[in-house]
Parts: sequence; C-alpha cells; structure tokens
Amino acid sequence: MPGPLITLTTDFGASDHFTGVLKGVILSIAPRATIVDITHGVEPFAIVEGAFTIAEAYRWFPKKTIHVVVVDPGVGSARRPVLVEAAGQYFLGPDNGVFTLLLAREKYKVRHLANEAYRLHPVSATFHGRDVFAPAAAHLAAGIAPARFGKLVQDPWIMSGLEPVRTGKRFWNGMVLKVDRFGNLITNFRLDEFPAMLTRPFELLAGVERLSRLAKTFSEGQPGELLVIPGSAGYFEVAANQASAARRLGIRAGSPIELTQF
Amino acid sequence: MPGPLITLTTDFGASDHFTGVLKGVILSIAPRATIVDITHGVEPFAIVEGAFTIAEAYRWFPKKTIHVVVVDPGVGSARRPVLVEAAGQYFLGPDNGVFTLLLAREKYKVRHLANEAYRLHPVSATFHGRDVFAPAAAHLAAGIAPARFGKLVQDPWIMSGLEPVRTGKRFWNGMVLKVDRFGNLITNFRLDEFPAMLTRPFELLAGVERLSRLAKTFSEGQPGELLVIPGSAGYFEVAANQASAARRLGIRAGSPIELTQF
Amino acid sequence: MPGPLITLTTDFGASDHFTGVLKGVILSIAPRATIVDITHGVEPFAIVEGAFTIAEAYRWFPKKTIHVVVVDPGVGSARRPVLVEAAGQYFLGPDNGVFTLLLAREKYKVRHLANEAYRLHPVSATFHGRDVFAPAAAHLAAGIAPARFGKLVQDPWIMSGLEPVRTGKRFWNGMVLKVDRFGNLITNFRLDEFPAMLTRPFELLAGVERLSRLAKTFSEGQPGELLVIPGSAGYFEVAANQASAARRLGIRAGSPIELTQF
Repeated sequence: MPGPLITLTTDFGASDHFTGVLKGVILSIAPRATIVDITHGVEPFAIVEGAFTIAEAYRWFPKKTIHVVVVDPGVGSARRPVLVEAAGQYFLGPDNGVFTLLLAREKYKVRHLANEAYRLHPVSATFHGRDVFAPAAAHLAAGIAPARFGKLVQDPWIMSGLEPVRTGKRFWNGMVLKVDRFGNLITNFRLDEFPAMLTRPFELLAGVERLSRLAKTFSEGQPGELLVIPGSAGYFEVAANQASAARRLGIRAGSPIELTQF
Repeated sequence: MPGPLITLTTDFGASDHFTGVLKGVILSIAPRATIVDITHGVEPFAIVEGAFTIAEAYRWFPKKTIHVVVVDPGVGSARRPVLVEAAGQYFLGPDNGVFTLLLAREKYKVRHLANEAYRLHPVSATFHGRDVFAPAAAHLAAGIAPARFGKLVQDPWIMSGLEPVRTGKRFWNGMVLKVDRFGNLITNFRLDEFPAMLTRPFELLAGVERLSRLAKTFSEGQPGELLVIPGSAGYFEVAANQASAARRLGIRAGSPIELTQF
Repeated sequence: MPGPLITLTTDFGASDHFTGVLKGVILSIAPRATIVDITHGVEPFAIVEGAFTIAEAYRWFPKKTIHVVVVDPGVGSARRPVLVEAAGQYFLGPDNGVFTLLLAREKYKVRHLANEAYRLHPVSATFHGRDVFAPAAAHLAAGIAPARFGKLVQDPWIMSGLEPVRTGKRFWNGMVLKVDRFGNLITNFRLDEFPAMLTRPFELLAGVERLSRLAKTFSEGQPGELLVIPGSAGYFEVAANQASAARRLGIRAGSPIELTQF
C-alpha cells in the first residue's frame, strides 16, 4: 500500500535550503510519506498566483492527499494558520486568501491550526513552513485526526476582486489571474460562465490590443499571432503561437482585461 | 518491491501548476508509481534540446522505466502521440522529433497512442501532457500491455540536421546541440565518431573564436580560458574554466560550429 | 518500512539532464531508495553557498539520511571525493570546503571515497556526480559499510574566512553567507554568538546603509524598509518587508558586513 501523499506549493524558489528543510521535517515525522513538489516558483508574496496554482492542481490528486501551501508575506503577524478540508483532501497554509479559489469551488471546513503539540518548538517568527505547516501535514499523514489540530473557523479569509465585474449590458471588467511559463495570460473569465464567447463575437481589450479571434489551439495562429483560447484550466486565455503573449502585450498577473460581448 | 518508475521531461518550467497536475494524474491512476523529475526546464518549444535531454538521461535508468517527454509546440495539431519501446524502457510523447536522438541510438518499436480508454476525457486541445501522456504512462505502469495503446507506426518523425555534415576532405559543419547550466557548449561531434580529435591537431570555429586546445577537464585552463573537452555525454564540448563559454562566445543552442581536422 | 533516503544538493541547475542522470544511477543500484531534491540551484561553483545550504538542511532530516552534495569547480583535478559521517547521517561530495560549516558544528569522521568497486567505469573527468558520488551513495543505501569505501582522512579541507573577525573592542568584520530567494541577506553573525544584538543597540554597515532596527518579523517594517531580523537559520539577516534587501543594497553573497556593538 502506498504511503500518504503530501504536496508542496510555495514561493520559496528552488535555490535555497527552504524546500529541503520542509521535506526533512515531514520525513522525520512521517517516514512513509511520499512528497510531491507542485511548484516552489510562485512569485514571492503573490497570493493570487498561489491561490490559482493550488486551485488548478488539487483536482487531479487522489482523495486524502495533503497539500501544504505556503505563500505567506505576513508570516509572523496575526494571520492564522489553517487546515482546510475540501473535496476529500486536506490543505494547510496561512489564512491570507491563498485558498480563495478553492473555497469558491468546494464545500469546506476550516480549522485553526492551533495545537502546539503538532508544531516544532521554538516556533520561529519567519519560517512557519518549517515550524507549523510541515509538521502539521506530517502528523496528519501519520494519522492524527483533523479535529485534534484546532477549532473550526467560521470566517476564513476570502480575497475579493478575483471575479469579473459587470459594468454594462455587454461589458465586463476582468483581470489576468496568472501568466504561465509560455507567456499565456490566464484571465478570470471562466468557460462555463461565459459560454457565449465560444459561439458569438466578442472583443477582449488586453493592454492596447483588441482581440477577437477565438482558436482551439495555439497552432492555429501564425507564429506570434495573438489568439483567445479556451484554456485547459477552464478559463479563457490570451496566447500567441510559439511566443509570449505577456511580453508582446506588456501585461502581468493582476493586469485588467475588458470584455465586450456582441 | 519498489513500485514502477516514471520520469518527467518537459518544457513546462517550474513555476506553474502543470507539472503538479501531471503528478496528480499519474498518482490517481498508479498510486504505487515513483515519479522522478528529469527536468521541466527545457527551453519552451525547443525540440532539439528535449531530444538531447532524454537521450542523455534514459541510459542511466533501470529497465522498464517509463519516460514521459512533453516538448510539444504543436499540441492540438495533427502530430500523433506515440509510445516508443527501446532499450527495455518506455517513452511517451509527441511524434514531433523529440525522440530523434534516442531512435538513432537504439532499436525501437513505436506505437500510436490512440486508445481512448487510456486518456482523460474530454481531451483538451492544449494540455495533452495531462490528458494523453500522463494517463497513458500511469496505465502502462499499472500493467496495461503496450500493444493495448495502439498500432505500430512505421514512420516516426526523425529530425534531420542534427548530425555533422562533411563539407570537404578536412572540413565538417556541425552545431551546438545544447548549452548547459554552466555555459558549456555541447556540440554534435561525438567522441566515438571523431576520435582523431583526441590525438591530432584540430580547429573548431565557434562564433569568431578558433579553438584548438584540448583539455581533459575544465580545471586545466586558466580561469575563463576557452577549452575543448571530451564531455561526459559523449560529445566534444566547448567550455571555459569556471566561466560561461556561451556568454563569452555569444553562442546558443543551434549555432553552427565548424571543424577542421589537420 | 520506508526505503533509504538520499538527498541531492548541487549547482547543476534544473534545466539539464544532470540531475535526472544522478537519479537514474541511484535507482539502478538502489531501487528502494527515496530521492529528495534539496536544491539544484546553488550558484555555479559557489562553494560557500553549497556549504551553507547543506549545513542548514541536514539538521531536519532523519538519522541515516544520505546527502549527496556536488558543488565542484575542481572536478577532475586532484581534490579528493569524500564520505563524511556526522550527526548520525552521511554526506558525499568533493573535499573542497563544501562541508566546512557542517564540520564546524558536528563531530565527524571523513573517509576518502577511493574504492573503485563503487564507481561507474570509465570515470569521466567532468561528471563525478554521476560516476563517483551517486553510485557511492546508492551502494551505501544498499547496505555497504562506510569503511568499505576508503580510508579515514585526517585533514579534510576547511575553508577559512567564514567566521566574523574581531577588529576592535566593539567592531567585527563579517560577511553575507547567502542571499535567499526573497533577497534577504543571511550574515555570518550567529544568534548564539552575538546575543547582545537581541537586547542592546548595534549598527550593521551593509553597502552604504547603516542599519540599527531589530525586528522580529518582516511584517513589522513599512513595505521596503530595511530591518535586521533574527533569522530562522540561526543567523542575523538583513531583510526588507516584501522587497529584496539585496537589490536595494546592491549586495551579494560574499559581500562584507561590519558590526558595531554599543
């Protein structure tokens, strides 16, 4: 029987000792755990990007997977560490909005990770990944029941502004949730909420460009041509065939995108 | 007994959810699999670099290892997904030339990965790593026989231009297959095909520099000195002691290298 | 029972075949081993950074963990490959100073990794990670006793200059050991050696800035404000709240830091 599965999603980067330390802490407590890196390349302190990453990744993992998510600009301040139970899986991280997109999608229970017995001591002020989240994940993997970690929280932190806002009969203000490795812009316009974009004319204003060509794949365009793609994550994306749309448009995560539907 | 071994080689980068998703898909189907990252840092869309990477890596893995290789600028277009059996191991990826250097080295069978039963549905147009290659690799790991995935392909795509071309009695036109992390230029002149370079005078023209000093190791040179090294991958390399030859020469993967043998 | 645990710390980067090759070599010899990446992002040839990274990471791993550390600018030259036994764990790497901070902290035995039976042959001149360190680690994981690898070494290479130097009654010359992902400067002033900094006035000269504000966490500062933090690794750090102190100060690993205590 395979051991428990723990994933890591952080903004720690791949060049420091931080992620190795998390793995050592986990394997010292739960030696049978299998650790899987989702990414350590979330932009430093980018909570929206972290929220997007874990919301896209968890759906593909088996039940009972334990996800550690540490994008934590406020480490050491008053924000609570939490354990989220959702979709038959577990999520540990700071209560700073990084679970916003997950919580919008699933039924959930959120607990305050308060039990000192499942932390490393002394708890440092700056590395809760090591002292709070990794040990709690490992104890959970080793069989400690969720209720043992702390009380239910009724008001988890939900970021606002991540959903498109209607500004007129045909107009919506949206944003770029994420720029991926290939320079594709993942917008916050969901395929299932804007199905008319698949069949009727529209215009997306991204930077100074007005885009209206919908394509099924990148390769339908001329090299470098800007396209709107129904993306694999369930959102409309702005992409350029074999080129970076982000660089062409000078656009980053958080940039506004305006939609007009005809 | 250890579980089946699945490696990942992609151009997905380390900052997105993509590689985490592949791992989740695999572990949902084949929970006993051990997943090993070879690299996700292949330059986006760089098929030659991907071909080089998997051709260098597979030789060191045990029999029955399953390699997933996704460098796929034409995802969603007509190129076939394939399963290659070679060297007692398995390789899954697009039939776009990424297996060229492997196929040049080993006897092989290639199958069209056509069986819909071993895909995730609906198959997206832009993320075949998730919907086609990862699930097929996991089903293979779980014991499905190769023949179940699809029919044999007689004409796998082989890239041309990766071998040196003789242009005169003493002259060869070659190229840089790969620039590695240290800025070393890995040429396509193989040690076993150009053994005279190990014992007799030669000149390599790389950018505007003419190189004729053969050294066994980087440390034989002065700091920054350009050297020709019989490299660990079986090719001659252009290197600079504790410095980047690529930066000094302004040379990239794909750049021409000319050889004169005396 | 979980298999043996082998970690990897290198300057190989994440874009080449190198780390995949190490993993293949290890799993071919010790198929039950669990391989954990600590980092492959040590700056090329940066021995001090490698020394810092492994010294911070090993403490969090279980007894009997086997650590492979390859930061090896002198590969192929006369430096010895070694096996270090310390803290109930094992460390394999070049005897070039990369274990300096570990050896300063723990009792140790060091052996020359000389036994040809536990190498891959022919041993290349430029890739001892593959041919010397990975196979030795795997044989150790498979149960070969440390004494079988080679004789004890009495004079392992210890780098000098990594400790602060007193230059006056109140003055110390220190340095930056490491710049982390977030741009924090990890100095070589240890919390346990300079406890007065926690309670009494001091001044750190870093670049052209004089810093005297001690804070417990990054979030105590204004965004961008430079702070001195008692860091999670046991050293004082210079940090900027949600910004890169390294970029603000134009400072890198190895840069001098001067301390005045009042």
